[in-house]
Amino acid sequence: MIQKIWQKSANENEHHAKIVEQFTVGNDVSFDYVLAKFDVLGSLAHCEMLHSIALLTSEEWNTIEKELKQILTEIEQNQFAIEPGIEDVHSQVEHLLIQRIGHIGKKIHSGRSRNDQVLTDLKLYLKAEILEIKSLTEIVFKTLIHLSNQHKGVLLPGYTHLQIAMPSSFGLWFGAYAESLVDDLELFLAAYNVMNKNPLGSGAGYGTSFPLNRTLTTELLAFNSLNVNSVYAQMTRGKSEKIMAMAMAGLAGTLSKFSYDSCLYLNQNFGFISFPDSLTTGSSIMPHKKNPDVFEIMRARCNRIQALPNELILLTNNLPSGYHRDVQLTKEALFPAIKSLKECLEMLHFMLQHIEVKTDIEKDAKYNYMFSVESVNQQVLDGIPFRDAYKNIGLAIENKEFIPNHNLSHSHEGSIGNLCNDLIEKAFEKVIAKFN
Amino acid sequence: MIQKIWQKSANENEHHAKIVEQFTVGNDVSFDYVLAKFDVLGSLAHCEMLHSIALLTSEEWNTIEKELKQILTEIEQNQFAIEPGIEDVHSQVEHLLIQRIGHIGKKIHSGRSRNDQVLTDLKLYLKAEILEIKSLTEIVFKTLIHLSNQHKGVLLPGYTHLQIAMPSSFGLWFGAYAESLVDDLELFLAAYNVMNKNPLGSGAGYGTSFPLNRTLTTELLAFNSLNVNSVYAQMTRGKSEKIMAMAMAGLAGTLSKFSYDSCLYLNQNFGFISFPDSLTTGSSIMPHKKNPDVFEIMRARCNRIQALPNELILLTNNLPSGYHRDVQLTKEALFPAIKSLKECLEMLHFMLQHIEVKTDIEKDAKYNYMFSVESVNQQVLDGIPFRDAYKNIGLAIENKEFIPNHNLSHSHEGSIGNLCNDLIEKAFEKVIAKFN
Amino acid sequence: MIQKIWQKSANENEHHAKIVEQFTVGNDVSFDYVLAKFDVLGSLAHCEMLHSIALLTSEEWNTIEKELKQILTEIEQNQFAIEPGIEDVHSQVEHLLIQRIGHIGKKIHSGRSRNDQVLTDLKLYLKAEILEIKSLTEIVFKTLIHLSNQHKGVLLPGYTHLQIAMPSSFGLWFGAYAESLVDDLELFLAAYNVMNKNPLGSGAGYGTSFPLNRTLTTELLAFNSLNVNSVYAQMTRGKSEKIMAMAMAGLAGTLSKFSYDSCLYLNQNFGFISFPDSLTTGSSIMPHKKNPDVFEIMRARCNRIQALPNELILLTNNLPSGYHRDVQLTKEALFPAIKSLKECLEMLHFMLQHIEVKTDIEKDAKYNYMFSVESVNQQVLDGIPFRDAYKNIGLAIENKEFIPNHNLSHSHEGSIGNLCNDLIEKAFEKVIAKFN
Amino acid sequence: MIQKIWQKSANENEHHAKIVEQFTVGNDVSFDYVLAKFDVLGSLAHCEMLHSIALLTSEEWNTIEKELKQILTEIEQNQFAIEPGIEDVHSQVEHLLIQRIGHIGKKIHSGRSRNDQVLTDLKLYLKAEILEIKSLTEIVFKTLIHLSNQHKGVLLPGYTHLQIAMPSSFGLWFGAYAESLVDDLELFLAAYNVMNKNPLGSGAGYGTSFPLNRTLTTELLAFNSLNVNSVYAQMTRGKSEKIMAMAMAGLAGTLSKFSYDSCLYLNQNFGFISFPDSLTTGSSIMPHKKNPDVFEIMRARCNRIQALPNELILLTNNLPSGYHRDVQLTKEALFPAIKSLKECLEMLHFMLQHIEVKTDIEKDAKYNYMFSVESVNQQVLDGIPFRDAYKNIGLAIENKEFIPNHNLSHSHEGSIGNLCNDLIEKAFEKVIAKFN
Repeated sequence: MIQKIWQKSANENEHHAKIVEQFTVGNDVSFDYVLAKFDVLGSLAHCEMLHSIALLTSEEWNTIEKELKQILTEIEQNQFAIEPGIEDVHSQVEHLLIQRIGHIGKKIHSGRSRNDQVLTDLKLYLKAEILEIKSLTEIVFKTLIHLSNQHKGVLLPGYTHLQIAMPSSFGLWFGAYAESLVDDLELFLAAYNVMNKNPLGSGAGYGTSFPLNRTLTTELLAFNSLNVNSVYAQMTRGKSEKIMAMAMAGLAGTLSKFSYDSCLYLNQNFGFISFPDSLTTGSSIMPHKKNPDVFEIMRARCNRIQALPNELILLTNNLPSGYHRDVQLTKEALFPAIKSLKECLEMLHFMLQHIEVKTDIEKDAKYNYMFSVESVNQQVLDGIPFRDAYKNIGLAIENKEFIPNHNLSHSHEGSIGNLCNDLIEKAFEKVIAKFN
Repeated sequence: MIQKIWQKSANENEHHAKIVEQFTVGNDVSFDYVLAKFDVLGSLAHCEMLHSIALLTSEEWNTIEKELKQILTEIEQNQFAIEPGIEDVHSQVEHLLIQRIGHIGKKIHSGRSRNDQVLTDLKLYLKAEILEIKSLTEIVFKTLIHLSNQHKGVLLPGYTHLQIAMPSSFGLWFGAYAESLVDDLELFLAAYNVMNKNPLGSGAGYGTSFPLNRTLTTELLAFNSLNVNSVYAQMTRGKSEKIMAMAMAGLAGTLSKFSYDSCLYLNQNFGFISFPDSLTTGSSIMPHKKNPDVFEIMRARCNRIQALPNELILLTNNLPSGYHRDVQLTKEALFPAIKSLKECLEMLHFMLQHIEVKTDIEKDAKYNYMFSVESVNQQVLDGIPFRDAYKNIGLAIENKEFIPNHNLSHSHEGSIGNLCNDLIEKAFEKVIAKFN
Repeated sequence: MIQKIWQKSANENEHHAKIVEQFTVGNDVSFDYVLAKFDVLGSLAHCEMLHSIALLTSEEWNTIEKELKQILTEIEQNQFAIEPGIEDVHSQVEHLLIQRIGHIGKKIHSGRSRNDQVLTDLKLYLKAEILEIKSLTEIVFKTLIHLSNQHKGVLLPGYTHLQIAMPSSFGLWFGAYAESLVDDLELFLAAYNVMNKNPLGSGAGYGTSFPLNRTLTTELLAFNSLNVNSVYAQMTRGKSEKIMAMAMAGLAGTLSKFSYDSCLYLNQNFGFISFPDSLTTGSSIMPHKKNPDVFEIMRARCNRIQALPNELILLTNNLPSGYHRDVQLTKEALFPAIKSLKECLEMLHFMLQHIEVKTDIEKDAKYNYMFSVESVNQQVLDGIPFRDAYKNIGLAIENKEFIPNHNLSHSHEGSIGNLCNDLIEKAFEKVIAKFN
Repeated sequence: MIQKIWQKSANENEHHAKIVEQFTVGNDVSFDYVLAKFDVLGSLAHCEMLHSIALLTSEEWNTIEKELKQILTEIEQNQFAIEPGIEDVHSQVEHLLIQRIGHIGKKIHSGRSRNDQVLTDLKLYLKAEILEIKSLTEIVFKTLIHLSNQHKGVLLPGYTHLQIAMPSSFGLWFGAYAESLVDDLELFLAAYNVMNKNPLGSGAGYGTSFPLNRTLTTELLAFNSLNVNSVYAQMTRGKSEKIMAMAMAGLAGTLSKFSYDSCLYLNQNFGFISFPDSLTTGSSIMPHKKNPDVFEIMRARCNRIQALPNELILLTNNLPSGYHRDVQLTKEALFPAIKSLKECLEMLHFMLQHIEVKTDIEKDAKYNYMFSVESVNQQVLDGIPFRDAYKNIGLAIENKEFIPNHNLSHSHEGSIGNLCNDLIEKAFEKVIAKFN
């Protein structure tokens, strides 16, 4: 709660300013730390460019460069802090610079606005996070493919309408989630391409009269190209976060679904998978109970992440073009979600390393009927017309003479007997390659 | 309202079946028409493949092919209707086939399930819609670039915090929305790549014991590759629609924002743009009034479309793997939204052809101060230290001696004086090229 | 698709007007039919008031009253249609009136705007729909209480973390959903109170210089009170729909959850409930399969309804005060959802009449351990310290000597042995009473 | 990032437990502080009841009561902390108790589960927060009514379609937002009624075999009635938070809209209101600039709050009945939003105390035409047929002879000349009264 918001003050203006700052800045500073490194990198590129167009002398540039690199080192060594009373990470970096090299430090803001500065930080940061998520996804992908190959012969009931329907397998189940990650990365690729454009030099959204060389900063910051139009560069604030959130929501959807399956399969009525006791919680008087807390929390986290695109749309929608301070709040919505998603990927990888699958599930008589379609199909392949085959099996079932044949011979691409995981791996590699 | 749901019936079973059908099928049939063409194309490929693996004789295949092509012609000539009592488009096609060629018609369903059939229809349909949206977007893009070039010299106030801030231009404004479309297409590209995979042959989500050749149908249907894993293929139901909706939401966000700007700029307090009377509504006793109904409806339609990804997530989330009938309802959410988005693109193109921009806006004295930054910057470029320059201009303003200089010399990439629309066009072409 | 939107026309203005109308009106007319009755009732009240302030002569009022009542009869007898080319239901009513009684008919619009007219229609309509939903909810409530009482002795496993945990019962299960409806009606009560205020007389959102008597129309239309402030009356457009949607989402959440439970309990691994074959779909070669299509569609419909508040927020958010045409689209989002929700309530009632519950579920050994807590508690009640009791039972289980006691003696309010359904019924009646 | 998640450990089980705890508990503890007070109150009531049914001796109860009250005092004096390694607030309270009074402390958990304990805390907490929000809303309401009365004679242009349409007034504008709060409180009343039911005694969602007296704890905790059914009591987890969020979203919608209006009216093209320099941010070289940061942040915060119901629906939807750990995450979504909403109400009150309204706006010629409807209406009231009156004014405008009459005589309820703020105040009091 804002303290003493209504009290009168000797110095009313100062009091007002404080109230306004408390309300508008809020916790924003705490989300700024992840941007620190990228803020310094952006300043380095900007200043090198200012030097190239003679707005900084060689001496000034050398002084600034040295000190910015020093600050970068401090950031990397966790020796950087945003001091109380300093509004944001950008101010802190400038503050340090001026403290250390005096008035020259003020020159780094020539031809730049807080707006294009934070945009640049954000795009560099999101690029880096996308690459991290991509790497974590790759680790999970490989584990899933490994599990699919490892358990390719273990049958699993396949459900439609949540009714026992047809034979499936752990090979198919693990492989399905691996392949899901291929499509999920397509959205991250789109996000990556959107982030990979340099907004630096767009100023407060309308450019500047300084003769900046934006092509140079694009190269220095290793952006693939420019956010050309200055008004559009500003428009990408909010939009970039939204697209990032969409990609995250896609991947989170896959993780949420896997978590749901896992909770269901751990349930004793299903009982298809298990985990070591150390990874579930239970009770000595209910030894059957293995609470899947990890998958419940993973599902819940991922479902919150799936709510994120909508939240960012609501936050930024129906605002005319041009900067509005509303966008400050995208950080507090997006940044913790990125951290949470990465933790989910790590945790999923960890859990997959310990998953145990049950064998011989299909021998339980309640799964017998899921083999009936197979028997019909076999008769068809043996030359019996479908209607007759169907009638034959129907009668056998009615007369309780139906004997399920557990030896399946599914042979087509992507079936129990022919998982084609190599094709899925190739598809994955193909998407990965497009990030470069 | 479902009629007489509680009445007893002589034939209770029949009565029950009817109630259940009314409730479960609902309006679904009305959304199926757009799939008809793709359903027949899918059946043609499936049957050619069945013939290749000897599940259809040459004669059977020839008969089926001829009749399916006949039905395709009827669809293209709008002579196709789903008859009352027929549940969906797939049943109608089969029904026609059996009516015309007898029992052979029943064979087309061998090795196929309604599930992979509708998945195939859907992916073919969404591919086609993405390409249409891409083409419409291209038309709008070109018009925006044209307008940007045409009005590049006309100044427009630039706002931050919705406060008059700095000079902008119609060149920047139109160009910004053109460049926005480049990023929007990245999401459609992701969606296109996701749709461009063949689910046919995945059956009800667990494959089949028939020795299908899924690689052949992939080629015949011009899919880029397979949805390899049968369980994953089924998982793409709902997920495909969600990704399509995300891409649509991105583009709709751009159109919504442009509509918002247009409503604001048409407002008499701003008065930056206008349209012929025939495209706005007004009143002879309020001649100033030019209601921007088109842009209000476009904004509203696009805001509904931005709600779509969330709706599809809610519809399909927290369901374990395997088919659930819930997904039937993605059609009634998604299909009308696709139509609406295409109409918005067409309407935007139409309106842009008639937009009129106001010149000499900056001559209104209330915009004078937006030139103050320019004057400061000019003094800095002339060698005066920033602090002094700032003080000079501040004093001039205080003494009411400040004279804005309307002759701007912005020269960097993406600024008023150097729009670099050619770079934006190249970026657009680059994305377009990736669809092939 | 809008036909030939770009073609030139001999009469360009007319051509433009048509394109604009097609785009802006869309399907809106089709949603207007439900408002027809309320539109006439609103006009009757408005005209009686105009007569009371001498803006209509007695003769004029008599003529108008007679004809409006005639139109009302036609509406009630389904003989009312909105003619092609007529924009909306309000225009159609006026059109009929003028056709039949000439220029007097035009006078009904004095002191009224299309804006307060549609607001009035909408509030009357939503009031009526809330009362219908309340009645349908009452029917479902009574059925659930009946089922709870009927099956109060039948045990059901209770799950936490989807793990078998403790004994529950069908009495508790059905009763829980009954009680859920009590809280759901609280939101409808809030919605009802919001709708129960008269916006008529607020004009286009700024009142009028005619000396209207809004208190009189409030009484005539049986509103509980006024939307006093004209600007606020206009603000309730969009807001009313949103609050209605929130109440609907609450109730839909309950129905969705019950549907989910039903799908799970119908699953063969659970097998707790069943329905006659005529209400599920299956297959003669998979006699176990009883697809719960009704509950899947009910869940899906209710999940779409749960997405509705967010859609309406997105549609109307970040618009400054005053009418915007965007709100027209609330109808196409809200009206079909109301119909769908009512159908779900009817269908749920229908299904509940045919639900069959399985008895002796707890005799399956896999549920034994859920009785262990009971045994511990019993020892505690018998004077054994908890730690010792817990250890005793734990040992018995370890030594496979644990014998579950199926005779439970839960006695507190709301437990298996003391459902207190009468308290739930009283709570329900209490909320119902507040609607009057 | 979870540290060293993959490292091997001497004690693997311990290592696993730590990883699982880090992931599942997350930041949850930090959200628990607000529950501490209510947790102790719940325990006091529970133990008094246990004593009443002889599960605690008088001596035990006295010891426990004394110590719990001591802890309550510590909480109120901010001397309470959740120690590192302690999982949640409930454990911390128990931990303290056992530390101080030994094994008796363990008895407080008899007949109670963590599930009904947290449910009880949550309902007590949400009840308290609703009452706080109600009080803050009342303060804002009174300020708005005061401003409405104070500025009732100051005209303001009224817009439709964001086009200048008709005269409005600051009296109407402030009053509209006051009246909006009346309807907003209806939703909080619904939420309050939902929270005002005692879940204590429902155990883990299936009651208990202890002979609890839930009616007694209901009285002791001042709940209005029981969550009767134990299964339903558990179902209110997630549902309560969702309904709270809906009420918050309604109020946030009003604040967001007021913020939007304020940003627009502070814009120089409108220029209808202003604030002291200390409450806006600007620049000495752009003296016109008064950035409305407070209202931008208020709008953004309130728009995030409007996304909350959807987030909670996504988090809890499509889960079968019974506890799932997913619901733990409702706290981290809901609690900060409650704090934020209260800060917005305080800040709005603060800003309203300093708002300045511009007078004589209507004298600007661009607003002339908004008086034309008035002139037409006046002629009609003077006996001239509407069509003729309309033609007269239309001609006057065409001939540039139209002279707007700024002396309006709007007299009906809720119009410029007759705000009826007393009716709005009565309506507000009526809702407020229903909370008791």
